[in-house]
Amino acid sequence: MKGKEISSLGEFGLIDHLTKHIQLTQPTSRKGVGDDAAVIDNAHKRTLVTTDLLLEGIHFDLVYVPMKHLGYKSAVVNFSDIYAMNGTPQQITVSLGISNRFSVEDIEEFYAGLLLACETYGVDIVGGDTSSSLTGFTVSITCIGIADEEQIVYRSGAKDTDLIYVSGDLGAAYMGLQLLEREKRVFDKSNSKEFQPDFAGKEYLLERQLKPEARKDIVKMLAEHGIVPTSMIDVSDGLSSDILHLCKESHVGCQLFEERLPIDYQTAMMAETFNMNVATVALNGGEDYELLFTVPLHLHDTMAELSGIHLIGHMTKAENGSYFVTRDGQAMELKAQGWNHIPESSREEEA
Amino acid sequence: MKGKEISSLGEFGLIDHLTKHIQLTQPTSRKGVGDDAAVIDNAHKRTLVTTDLLLEGIHFDLVYVPMKHLGYKSAVVNFSDIYAMNGTPQQITVSLGISNRFSVEDIEEFYAGLLLACETYGVDIVGGDTSSSLTGFTVSITCIGIADEEQIVYRSGAKDTDLIYVSGDLGAAYMGLQLLEREKRVFDKSNSKEFQPDFAGKEYLLERQLKPEARKDIVKMLAEHGIVPTSMIDVSDGLSSDILHLCKESHVGCQLFEERLPIDYQTAMMAETFNMNVATVALNGGEDYELLFTVPLHLHDTMAELSGIHLIGHMTKAENGSYFVTRDGQAMELKAQGWNHIPESSREEEA
Repeated sequence: MKGKEISSLGEFGLIDHLTKHIQLTQPTSRKGVGDDAAVIDNAHKRTLVTTDLLLEGIHFDLVYVPMKHLGYKSAVVNFSDIYAMNGTPQQITVSLGISNRFSVEDIEEFYAGLLLACETYGVDIVGGDTSSSLTGFTVSITCIGIADEEQIVYRSGAKDTDLIYVSGDLGAAYMGLQLLEREKRVFDKSNSKEFQPDFAGKEYLLERQLKPEARKDIVKMLAEHGIVPTSMIDVSDGLSSDILHLCKESHVGCQLFEERLPIDYQTAMMAETFNMNVATVALNGGEDYELLFTVPLHLHDTMAELSGIHLIGHMTKAENGSYFVTRDGQAMELKAQGWNHIPESSREEEA
Repeated sequence: MKGKEISSLGEFGLIDHLTKHIQLTQPTSRKGVGDDAAVIDNAHKRTLVTTDLLLEGIHFDLVYVPMKHLGYKSAVVNFSDIYAMNGTPQQITVSLGISNRFSVEDIEEFYAGLLLACETYGVDIVGGDTSSSLTGFTVSITCIGIADEEQIVYRSGAKDTDLIYVSGDLGAAYMGLQLLEREKRVFDKSNSKEFQPDFAGKEYLLERQLKPEARKDIVKMLAEHGIVPTSMIDVSDGLSSDILHLCKESHVGCQLFEERLPIDYQTAMMAETFNMNVATVALNGGEDYELLFTVPLHLHDTMAELSGIHLIGHMTKAENGSYFVTRDGQAMELKAQGWNHIPESSREEEA
């Protein structure tokens, strides 16, 4: 730890210090930090609520994640959930557990990242809780969003003839993580303070891992074209797990096609370097924060004119199951992945 | 750990297992667990949001806190914040970080406590996040409430002639904690599995610490008598810190009177045993979850007819400061306490 000790400010001092510059910008935010609860006026609209818990050592490694990036990402992953309902994020509450190895400056950096994300996406910080922690850094963020009732998109609305689309590309955030982990191992071995990690030509992978964005632009584009998806989810656990959520809630099956998976050049190169199957990375990597959604078949031509989205498959009847069709025509059953995105064993099998 | 390993269910399995019996009971809960966000319809009313982070070793000690009680308390402390805005809690989201020393049964117990609290107070569980944790048990709960705009009570509305009331009694939860800590130390020394802690005649103190209630009844009683407090807060950090929050936000000072502090017989007895000043315990103990509020002077006679509340002082002009007046007429300046409720040194000074 370098810098001012948090105990020099105390609990209330730290909260005051961090929140004194917070300005409410959204008309729905009636009262923010500084009371028992925040007050929100969503008038006749629906209120959306989502929450994420991020734990040091599980969700992030502060050896290679700067506090400012962590603050940014912590907010953005919550915004992503609200966009996945076709809503607009409006407010967040931020709870932090802080151990004594962090300085006031560390927490300021985290807040700077949070505030940058909030400014970028038009969201207010309206409350939270700050506590000391015995172990590591704990972040819990709850995001409140707004939506017109008839615009809300659930996971449950897909029909068995719908087309499946995903925005952006897949697998890059996971390859970024692998790259950071590799450089960390090299750094640990080199035992040198002058160690410079080799990230040239891999900037996109790092950005996708360290500073992801939520696809506000895709939600806006769909709205401008009058398209309300029949179902939608954001790709956080990985395409495979997330399409299965849509299938389960909508009582349908699906077919995804390897040849249609959108994969960036850097992702493909890096997978090659690591001797990993890039389709497995795209399916199971996770943390892409892209939007995965379905639309009725008759919208195919309209969708074809939109940029930034990719047709990757179609829904089927539930009894047909959920499959991934490889380039050579093999149909492999899709499996949900939980906490451990790609276990070592399956990675080796794929390689 | 005894019982089924959580890894046998996996992340999605555990969430399904815990949430499959959750029923939505509130008309405002449109969509609960199982999508990217919950959907809430608060129609023309205001939405209140509050959040609490509870960390093992900081906020609770699982040596003497049963998981079911922890679940109950985790929910209730959030409801208390909504009542302190003169609102009604409606929904919670629940995020858990779980290390591998916990079994499925442990988490079921925690959920049983949560559900009991939700049933008692008429609140729905509508979402959350479950994650593995490297260290200990982490609980983050966000509560959503509802209120008519004109009924919301902020910390900032007190006038310098208002009367100060508190519900119930103070200091019992803190003495319950001291008692549990003492028995834990005895247990550690005795090194016997047949150790039976001595809690006879101290049940009220334990209940106040382990299974606190939020004062829904007080909010209801005030509403039935047409009384809207000018300011309100729940006593979580301790009377001293919490009255100072009202004073700061309302730009007033205050005088509290020792002779008027409501203190239960068991609290007084226990303080005597521990050689602690009971007024200090009542002022700084915290975790009482009573409601502390102000009403205009002219309501004095109406208030005198209400039961379960106590007149403990009055607001003053800000320039007069904030003081605690002892039985012998000494005026001591009130001080805010943060994380460390009663430091050893000040406890010794008081004794």
